[in-house]
Amino acid sequence: MSSLIFEPSSGKYYYHYPFPVAIVGVKAGEKVNFMSAAWHTQLSFDPPLYGVLISPKRYTNELLKQSSAFSVNFLKFEDYKTAGFVGRTSGRELDKVKTFGLKYFDGKVATVPVLENAIACYECKIVDSRTYGDHILYVGEILGIHYDKSYYENGLSKSLLLYHGNDRYTFANSESVKFGKEEVYDEINKNRKG
Amino acid sequence: MSSLIFEPSSGKYYYHYPFPVAIVGVKAGEKVNFMSAAWHTQLSFDPPLYGVLISPKRYTNELLKQSSAFSVNFLKFEDYKTAGFVGRTSGRELDKVKTFGLKYFDGKVATVPVLENAIACYECKIVDSRTYGDHILYVGEILGIHYDKSYYENGLSKSLLLYHGNDRYTFANSESVKFGKEEVYDEINKNRKG
Repeated sequence: MSSLIFEPSSGKYYYHYPFPVAIVGVKAGEKVNFMSAAWHTQLSFDPPLYGVLISPKRYTNELLKQSSAFSVNFLKFEDYKTAGFVGRTSGRELDKVKTFGLKYFDGKVATVPVLENAIACYECKIVDSRTYGDHILYVGEILGIHYDKSYYENGLSKSLLLYHGNDRYTFANSESVKFGKEEVYDEINKNRKG
Repeated sequence: MSSLIFEPSSGKYYYHYPFPVAIVGVKAGEKVNFMSAAWHTQLSFDPPLYGVLISPKRYTNELLKQSSAFSVNFLKFEDYKTAGFVGRTSGRELDKVKTFGLKYFDGKVATVPVLENAIACYECKIVDSRTYGDHILYVGEILGIHYDKSYYENGLSKSLLLYHGNDRYTFANSESVKFGKEEVYDEINKNRKG
């Protein structure tokens, strides 16, 4: 018996949260801006593509139209306030970098700002953009990656900032299960025989 | 000073993990299949659109071409083995439903299978598909939502299954910070004045 409740889609749905936070950085001329995005995903390994969803109303969208690149920055949980700040303000009204004292440096391979306190950052060249409903999917080819080794073990973060919805933030529990390929296949084979 | 290390993109990058796991369900004729996907995102509120990335090599892609809908199922952490099983096997070689004893029921508004042990499931009608590099983005309009009320508080899950990469799974810590809109704005105003 299922204990699932059904309802027609209301348009607002958060059942797939918590979700990692991506801080999208753009530099257009002298203007630098950052915004937090809860909608983003890897799209391809070869070429390495990463997609971020931006509302056409956002100031970031104006800058993206004048730029050929963006950065995708990931923060550690402790820096959740940065995500809250850049997510709830607009670069039209204030200079987020100055107002919140954000520190960044220029990208190595693309014209993008890289947050100094990021635990990882992807430098992306815009290769496509496409409107889906009320948002625009910007597709970036990842040209280079920055990461803070101290926050990753075998490439896997234990403190990545996740958005919980409603301005709340969380992070993944460090008690991760080591399911491992061998164990997966052992159990699959057991099930096959059973 | 930044402690970030730079390297050119290698094509394989997991610095944005852990990421929620989406179990994509498809029904084409009599065939029912589920696969786990680590690449997916919300795309739009109005209309409500959800996107999943599927490799053209996957059996799921064959079924999606014969279908007009898919389901996106989210599991609780305790059911991580289901994600491992359906992620590491192919519906071409075995019947995943039978082999792993998966229980599902038919969608209410779309021809999709809904996992009984999901904590949430989105029923999606395919409205677009587009190739990005080595994957295909299937765009689904969410027609209806199922959720297990006991796993959500104010719509926010505390036990959602996250993929950690390398066949490892984790979940978000329940000690979530209640940053809250009021607090965000209070601090933003403080920074504005400072």
